[in-house]
Amino acid sequence: MADVPTDAPQHCPGTESEQAGKSSACQGCPNQSLCASGLPKQPDPAIEEIKQKMSTVKHKILVLSGKGGVGKSTFSAHLAHGLASDESKEVAVLDIDICGPSIPRIMGLEGEQVHQSGSGWSPVYVEDNLSVMSIGFLLGSPDDAVIWRGPKKNGMIKQFLRDVDWGGLDYLIVDTPPGTSDEHLSIVQYLSAAQIDGAVIITTPQEVSLQDVRKEITFCRKVNLPIIGVVENMSIFICPKCKKSSEIFPPTTGGAEKMCEELNIPLLGKVPLDPQIGKSCDEGKSFLTECPDSPATVAYRNIIQSKYKRKKSNLLCKEHQNQITSKYVFM
Amino acid sequence: MADVPTDAPQHCPGTESEQAGKSSACQGCPNQSLCASGLPKQPDPAIEEIKQKMSTVKHKILVLSGKGGVGKSTFSAHLAHGLASDESKEVAVLDIDICGPSIPRIMGLEGEQVHQSGSGWSPVYVEDNLSVMSIGFLLGSPDDAVIWRGPKKNGMIKQFLRDVDWGGLDYLIVDTPPGTSDEHLSIVQYLSAAQIDGAVIITTPQEVSLQDVRKEITFCRKVNLPIIGVVENMSIFICPKCKKSSEIFPPTTGGAEKMCEELNIPLLGKVPLDPQIGKSCDEGKSFLTECPDSPATVAYRNIIQSKYKRKKSNLLCKEHQNQITSKYVFM
Repeated sequence: MADVPTDAPQHCPGTESEQAGKSSACQGCPNQSLCASGLPKQPDPAIEEIKQKMSTVKHKILVLSGKGGVGKSTFSAHLAHGLASDESKEVAVLDIDICGPSIPRIMGLEGEQVHQSGSGWSPVYVEDNLSVMSIGFLLGSPDDAVIWRGPKKNGMIKQFLRDVDWGGLDYLIVDTPPGTSDEHLSIVQYLSAAQIDGAVIITTPQEVSLQDVRKEITFCRKVNLPIIGVVENMSIFICPKCKKSSEIFPPTTGGAEKMCEELNIPLLGKVPLDPQIGKSCDEGKSFLTECPDSPATVAYRNIIQSKYKRKKSNLLCKEHQNQITSKYVFM
Repeated sequence: MADVPTDAPQHCPGTESEQAGKSSACQGCPNQSLCASGLPKQPDPAIEEIKQKMSTVKHKILVLSGKGGVGKSTFSAHLAHGLASDESKEVAVLDIDICGPSIPRIMGLEGEQVHQSGSGWSPVYVEDNLSVMSIGFLLGSPDDAVIWRGPKKNGMIKQFLRDVDWGGLDYLIVDTPPGTSDEHLSIVQYLSAAQIDGAVIITTPQEVSLQDVRKEITFCRKVNLPIIGVVENMSIFICPKCKKSSEIFPPTTGGAEKMCEELNIPLLGKVPLDPQIGKSCDEGKSFLTECPDSPATVAYRNIIQSKYKRKKSNLLCKEHQNQITSKYVFM
C-alpha cells in the first residue's frame, strides 16, 4: 500500500484507509490520533528549518555500508581529510552512528567537547577548514554507552542538522551506522528538502558483505537517494616481508567489481589493506599524510579526485529502474 | 531519574513524576496516555508467554559486539556448529540482525523458507540437531532490504521468541547486530523472565573496536546481563608464502587482552585471520570441518570447549560493580 509509512507498525492499514487510526494495529502507534482525526499528515516542521540551515552547505554526501566494519568511518574521515587538503574548501563531517561513534577517535578529537553559542552548537575543528560533530563529544567518557531506541536517535540526528552552526560549507560528509533502519530513514527524511547529492557505499570483497550492499542499494532506490558509487575496501593484503598479495576476504562471487557491473553502478576504486590504516585511525592521524606513498593512500586519493559528472536526471522519482548512474564531482 | 525508561523520548519527566504524560516532551510518545492515566505500567504479556516457550531451552547465549564486521555472525555460526558436533545436544541459532541477516548465507541456508505448523513457525534445519531462524528466510530475495524503524524490528524479535517452535534445546545462540539499541534492549527485555545465561562479546584488536566493546560492557552492566567473556577475532594474519605473522588491525592499546585484564573479564581466546574463514562463510560451510587443522579452527575449538564454571552471584542487581566474572560451561 502506497500510504503505509516505512516506519509504520506491522499490519498498519495505511494512512488513507477507512481503518486508519482505528484498527488493532494502530494501538500504541504514535500517529494513531493523527490518523484517526482524518487530517492530512503535516510534514515535520524541522524539515523546512533544516532546509534553511543547509542552504549554506553546497554538497551533502552520505557514506553508507550494508555490513559494519568495512571501513565506513575510515573512508568518511579520509574523504574529509582529502577534500580539506584544498585550503579553499570548507569541509565538515557529521557522525550519525549514535551507538558506535568512532569518528572522534579516528579524527584525533577524543575528549573534545561541543560548545554552545547564540547561533547553535559549535562543531569541533580538526583544521581551520575541517569541522566535526558527533555524539561522542556529548558523552562524559568514551566508554559510555548510548542505550537508545529509535525515537531518541532520530531526535539527536534532527538536532545535529538543525542546531549545529556549520557555517558555510563546500562539503558535508555524513557517516552512518550499518544497516537500513532509523538513522538512515531519518537522515534521508530530514535532508529531503535540502537535497542530498548522493551516497558512497563501502564494502569488502566477500559475498557476505556484498549481500548487505545489495540491500543498501535497494534502500537507496526505495528512498530515491542517488548512488555516487561503491568503494571496495580491504581488497588485498601485501605481506610486508615477501610482498605476496593475499585475499584476506576472498571475492568468492567476483567482489565489488562484478556486482557494480551487474547493477550498473560506478566502482569508485579498490583500497588495499594496510595495517598502518588501523594504526593511524587509533592514533587519530590522517593516514593520507602519515603514509603518503602507501598503495592505499594512492587508492584513496584516486577515489577522492575522481572527476565524475553528476547525471541525476534519470535517478529521481523512478523507483524500479535498473540504471543508477549518479555521478558526481568530488573535487 | 530511575523512572525514565531507556527508550523514553528526550526530556521525559519520568513515569512516576507529577508531569508524567503531561509535559511537552510527552507529545507523540506512545506511552503518553498510559503515563497520564496514572495507572502503573503493566509488563508486556509477551514476556510471560516467552518464558513459557523458553522453558524447554536450557541455555541462552547472546553474541554481541560493539562494532560491526568483527566476526560476530561467523562466531555464532561456529559456536553452533561446534556445540552441535556432540550429537546428543540440540542447538539452535536465532539471528536478530533484522536489517543485515548474514546467518542464512554463512550456514548454507540461503533460499530456505520458514514453514508454519500448528505449534508455530518451524525453524530451518542445518543438521538433525541444529536449527536456525532468521528474517532472511522471510524475504523474497536476499537483496531485499528490511527498511524498518525500531518498533517493527522489536515486533519481529518478539515473534521469533514467542512463535517459533524451537522444541527442546540445550543451547539457543542469539546473533545480534552491532550497537546498543532497539534489538539489544528488546532481546534482553523479552528474555528477562526466561533468563539469559550471558553474553559473549566479539572484538578485533584495534582500539577503535575495543572502544565500542567497552560501550557494550557498559550496556551489559546497565541491563544486568552477565558477560561470559570476550573473543578477539582477526588477531594476526600469517602469510601463506613466507609464514610471517602480520598484525592487520594493530593492537595499539594492548588489544583485547589488556582490556580484559583492566575490566576483569575473561578473555575466551584469540582467533587468527584465515582467508578460508571468509570463503567457508560465503559458501555456507562449516570452517571447523572444512579446515580442521587451521590454527583458527584450533582457536575456535579451544574457546568452545573452555570449561568455565558460571559464577553469577556477584553479577545480578549490582549496577556499578567493577568485577564482572560470569563464567559458564559451554560444553
